[in-house]
Amino acid sequence: MYIKILFFAVVITVIACVYINSTKAEEGMWTFDNPPTKLIQEKYGFTPTQEWLDHTRLSCVRFMDGGSGSFVSPNGLVMTNHHVALGQLQKMSNENTDYVKTGFYAKTQEEEIKCADLECNVLISMENVTQRVLASIKPEMDGREAIKAREAEIAKIEIENKEKTGLQCDVVSLYKGGEYWLYRYKKYTDVRLVMAPEQQIAFFGGDDDNFTYPRYDLDFTFFRIYENDKPLKPEHYFKWNSKGASDGELVFVAGNPGNTDRLNTYSELENTRDLGFPLRLKFINDYLKVIRQYSTKGKEQMRQVLGRIFGLENSKKAITGEYNGLLDANIMKNRKKEEDDFRKLISEKPEWKKKYGDLWDSIQSIIKIRAEQSKSQQFEQLVGSQLFGIASTLVRYVVEIKKPDSERLEGYHDSQLERLKFGLMSPAPIYKELEKDVMTAFLKSSLEMLGKDNKFLQIVLKDKTPEEVVANLVDNSQLNDIELRKKLLEGGEKAIKKSKDPMIQLALELDPMMRERIEWSKQNIESKLTPAKEKIASARFEVYGKNKYPDATFTLRLSYGSVKGYPMNGTLAPYKTTLYGLYDRSLGFDNKGGFALPDRYFQRKDQLDLSTPVNFVTTNDIVGGNSGSPVFNKNDEIVGLVFDGNIESLVGQYVFDITANRTVAVHSAFIIEALRKLYDAPKLADEIE
Amino acid sequence: MYIKILFFAVVITVIACVYINSTKAEEGMWTFDNPPTKLIQEKYGFTPTQEWLDHTRLSCVRFMDGGSGSFVSPNGLVMTNHHVALGQLQKMSNENTDYVKTGFYAKTQEEEIKCADLECNVLISMENVTQRVLASIKPEMDGREAIKAREAEIAKIEIENKEKTGLQCDVVSLYKGGEYWLYRYKKYTDVRLVMAPEQQIAFFGGDDDNFTYPRYDLDFTFFRIYENDKPLKPEHYFKWNSKGASDGELVFVAGNPGNTDRLNTYSELENTRDLGFPLRLKFINDYLKVIRQYSTKGKEQMRQVLGRIFGLENSKKAITGEYNGLLDANIMKNRKKEEDDFRKLISEKPEWKKKYGDLWDSIQSIIKIRAEQSKSQQFEQLVGSQLFGIASTLVRYVVEIKKPDSERLEGYHDSQLERLKFGLMSPAPIYKELEKDVMTAFLKSSLEMLGKDNKFLQIVLKDKTPEEVVANLVDNSQLNDIELRKKLLEGGEKAIKKSKDPMIQLALELDPMMRERIEWSKQNIESKLTPAKEKIASARFEVYGKNKYPDATFTLRLSYGSVKGYPMNGTLAPYKTTLYGLYDRSLGFDNKGGFALPDRYFQRKDQLDLSTPVNFVTTNDIVGGNSGSPVFNKNDEIVGLVFDGNIESLVGQYVFDITANRTVAVHSAFIIEALRKLYDAPKLADEIE
Repeated sequence: MYIKILFFAVVITVIACVYINSTKAEEGMWTFDNPPTKLIQEKYGFTPTQEWLDHTRLSCVRFMDGGSGSFVSPNGLVMTNHHVALGQLQKMSNENTDYVKTGFYAKTQEEEIKCADLECNVLISMENVTQRVLASIKPEMDGREAIKAREAEIAKIEIENKEKTGLQCDVVSLYKGGEYWLYRYKKYTDVRLVMAPEQQIAFFGGDDDNFTYPRYDLDFTFFRIYENDKPLKPEHYFKWNSKGASDGELVFVAGNPGNTDRLNTYSELENTRDLGFPLRLKFINDYLKVIRQYSTKGKEQMRQVLGRIFGLENSKKAITGEYNGLLDANIMKNRKKEEDDFRKLISEKPEWKKKYGDLWDSIQSIIKIRAEQSKSQQFEQLVGSQLFGIASTLVRYVVEIKKPDSERLEGYHDSQLERLKFGLMSPAPIYKELEKDVMTAFLKSSLEMLGKDNKFLQIVLKDKTPEEVVANLVDNSQLNDIELRKKLLEGGEKAIKKSKDPMIQLALELDPMMRERIEWSKQNIESKLTPAKEKIASARFEVYGKNKYPDATFTLRLSYGSVKGYPMNGTLAPYKTTLYGLYDRSLGFDNKGGFALPDRYFQRKDQLDLSTPVNFVTTNDIVGGNSGSPVFNKNDEIVGLVFDGNIESLVGQYVFDITANRTVAVHSAFIIEALRKLYDAPKLADEIE
Repeated sequence: MYIKILFFAVVITVIACVYINSTKAEEGMWTFDNPPTKLIQEKYGFTPTQEWLDHTRLSCVRFMDGGSGSFVSPNGLVMTNHHVALGQLQKMSNENTDYVKTGFYAKTQEEEIKCADLECNVLISMENVTQRVLASIKPEMDGREAIKAREAEIAKIEIENKEKTGLQCDVVSLYKGGEYWLYRYKKYTDVRLVMAPEQQIAFFGGDDDNFTYPRYDLDFTFFRIYENDKPLKPEHYFKWNSKGASDGELVFVAGNPGNTDRLNTYSELENTRDLGFPLRLKFINDYLKVIRQYSTKGKEQMRQVLGRIFGLENSKKAITGEYNGLLDANIMKNRKKEEDDFRKLISEKPEWKKKYGDLWDSIQSIIKIRAEQSKSQQFEQLVGSQLFGIASTLVRYVVEIKKPDSERLEGYHDSQLERLKFGLMSPAPIYKELEKDVMTAFLKSSLEMLGKDNKFLQIVLKDKTPEEVVANLVDNSQLNDIELRKKLLEGGEKAIKKSKDPMIQLALELDPMMRERIEWSKQNIESKLTPAKEKIASARFEVYGKNKYPDATFTLRLSYGSVKGYPMNGTLAPYKTTLYGLYDRSLGFDNKGGFALPDRYFQRKDQLDLSTPVNFVTTNDIVGGNSGSPVFNKNDEIVGLVFDGNIESLVGQYVFDITANRTVAVHSAFIIEALRKLYDAPKLADEIE
């Protein structure tokens, strides 16, 4: 599923890369300030107007849970994927009512259920602030000072604008420092569930079919955004086209691709391949092992972890696909050649050679230092505890809030506090037994790897066993109580220091070490790597020119392409699938496991038009984070709902190949057919049609 | 499609290899004298009895057109694939009646249509004649003499037994000379068409879906065998099971796999990879180019070449798959390791080292000589002329027939004459315009490659243009007249020498060169390679023991396995597909091209049970030549009809991997459902059920 891939607390964060050298047809996740108008015009004879672009942008919604969505009615109705909504569905379920399993439909607005902690954003405006950000860095500053100055300036821009406009303001670095843009968002936090089908059909085919095609998923959820307790009346929303798009038709996707590494240096890719991915996969497998074990304890335990298993399995399959991309000798060879060509051009001009010639080698040596640190810190973390996360945030908050904004840690700037508090005060349930199982398992594994004399483990365990320590921490912590969190937040440093809560006490003890680590990383990695990569960005601008798209940054992007099948496993994948195929695939596995259909699909089969298209594929260039994005035609009418990429698209993290890289979407006709004939929701169908 | 792959007159014939080292579960195409009883017993708890084996063997039919089949009623009804029957269907069609396109059903026996030149065989008995064959070779003989002696002895055994039993008798070399067996066949040549569906559904998905799965093909044809103008009443035939086999059920396949190279030496594989496959693929592509061009001339021209295009495309896809197998570094590495291990064991025992140590090197040098010859002779042949084939056979026949049997060329022994004459006297139509186009194209390409001074081209062209020569040859040849062929055959050498037919004259002129070439090959290749490979066979027997199966030889083999899906393209392929999926796949391509369904499939859709299984996959180990084989359960009931292997099975030419190598079969239920509800053939359904 094309949800933003979970990034775990593995220290090797992949630094987003510069910008793209040569753009192939359909390639690119374009910012709305720089749409590929000419390319679209040339290939499809359609010219997007500014009005069209504005209408599109303002009809799109970002889900801070890691996905995308769109307005589909004048009454604030928002469409996204079921798997983007999954976390919220789970949070509003309990032992007796499991909306993930049964689905949900609010026949009236009164029945709509408010989400625990869902934030949605609409991108209202963008402003290029590159000059201002760069001007904050003075020539006399060293690397560490430059980072500080840049961070301070960004925080200042954000808060100034927030105060001026009342909007959520984020400065985003594009082209890895080549440009800085201020994105102003209208933020919504009263989001209510209108309709979700059963996970069994939303995720039909389960982990097996995930990231593959041909596919038969009804992966949608409808929310409604409220403002002042009333349904929002958005000025812009997408019209609906129940006929969908025909084979070969031009279609667009607008959404928030999370992260791509299309022009990382070759040494970075090698590092990701040889260290990053193996570590991440080990982490995922260990995590899966413990929560699968937990899920066998009972039906309710199974319900609690189902969403997390889904997310981990999804990441595992995605990362495995990306990993295979890097293990592919041809892909690596091509990337090496690209880099060699670039470096050759630079070395041929003395002026360039002097300015840029050493960059790749110095990046390689920084990467090497970072890798050493990653390996040693992989096991120095507390995994799987929301309670500890809350404690740690509280402990830092009370300290940071007293500093001038420019001195604070990332995440604690004034402009970020609203979002921080929204998360901190979430009423979503915390499952203590689950926390204990996960924490214990990971601590045991750390103990095995690092030995009990390790400083981190000394602080955490104090020579007790992981079981004893975790039982004390979790059982005796009261942080699941929102009122207590509020009290501590408001009580400030004094209240925190006085607290007897064992999680708070542990967070206080670990805080200096964690701060040291952040500072070390800023000093030794970021302050060197960031300017080096900025320089590579400049070099590219200078050598190749600047009419390209930046790597993905979980901000709104536009992608164009067309509906198109592709060569697959010796034959062709069709451009669309139909309801016939849904039954075929289910019966091919005797309606078992992930291929079992909800009962209603057999009970009401004869009422359905089985030739209704179910899913379809397009050549649009998307990645994780685009889940829930609308697929729309040139008339800005929705023809589908992005929910995945095919297995061939996973190397899209590094390279786009139109041959077989495909976006997978739910067809607009299936959504209507299902609402009307399977879910008795004609009112909802009427609202969007 | 798993028809025997067309082998063209490319000189690099791949010499069938020895026998298999270590047998993996389900692996193996076992002879009926040595069934894998113990393996089946161990894995599935079923022990085939001698009675069961005999009944199975006698219910099987070999199609000399290159496929397999089985008796399915007490009235001589035989089932095979549509694509095995394709050549015959085309031969009985003409400009006005195209059974390939429309399908055919004989409601009464009187309406059944006799095939032009179809020979079917039933394997009546087998006898080990190894001792007798080997005894014919005396120690004092050199390689060339040994080959002659062996050939003479084999011809003698064949004709003796034919005279004694009245059966077709073939001596077959198994384990590459490790064993020689006499196979006695009951031969049938009065075979009549009962029922064939439209090619559109038999080959649904066309070249794209060929050799892939999931699949939706109704690839069957029913023939009836006649004896003395009455339907044959076979003592043995398969009962029918319309329920088919369930997921995981033990199933068997009995049929005639054509050829495998599972233990060729590494140098042979390299030669096939670097020379054999590129040459074959070039030949196929050139051939396809000219007949596709021919097919654009009109509807009738299209009809004439459709079967040949099918065959060539089929070979192209199969060979490409096998080629990819050899291009796979892992497969080659494993094969190298196997060989290295074997050679290491041999080198460690001085006695073995002395006897066998040099074999691999000497094979490598023979292969090298053969490769040189192949490259030079690739363009010294007349391609695409049946008329020339007839002329050439007549020219040789009248000479050979006068020699003692032991001195004759292969194909002209007494035991082989009946089959030779059956082919020679075939009333199947010859399309002269097509012959001209193909011959001309290949001659032009030869001229380009070899230059006009080449000896072969001198004889053929005599300084005229290919167009002129071919026009004269084809237009003025009367060999399409069967009576003339008969006259020449009976008239002997004198009639041939007097004939003014230009094809006969050319065949006479080319004959010395062709004979020289055969003799050269026997002298320089066969007489050296055969004993070397025999010795490797002995070495294997000595080093590893002898409880294995021989490489495929287009003789009857038994394979066991079970119904089972497999991992595919990131997900799972189901164990079966259904009629739902047929409509899904058709609509996924807007019912166009190879994915268009015959009209009746839409007209009668509502009468069908769409949950009827269409195709299914099993782990049985088969290759090309197994097309038309029955899939049956332990009660000897037919549950399906083999028609293909999946794309992952194509490397089966070299190595069997149960992970994804699958047999693809039509489900017994679909055949019945189609006969009853789509083709108004309830009588036929009753006969087999």
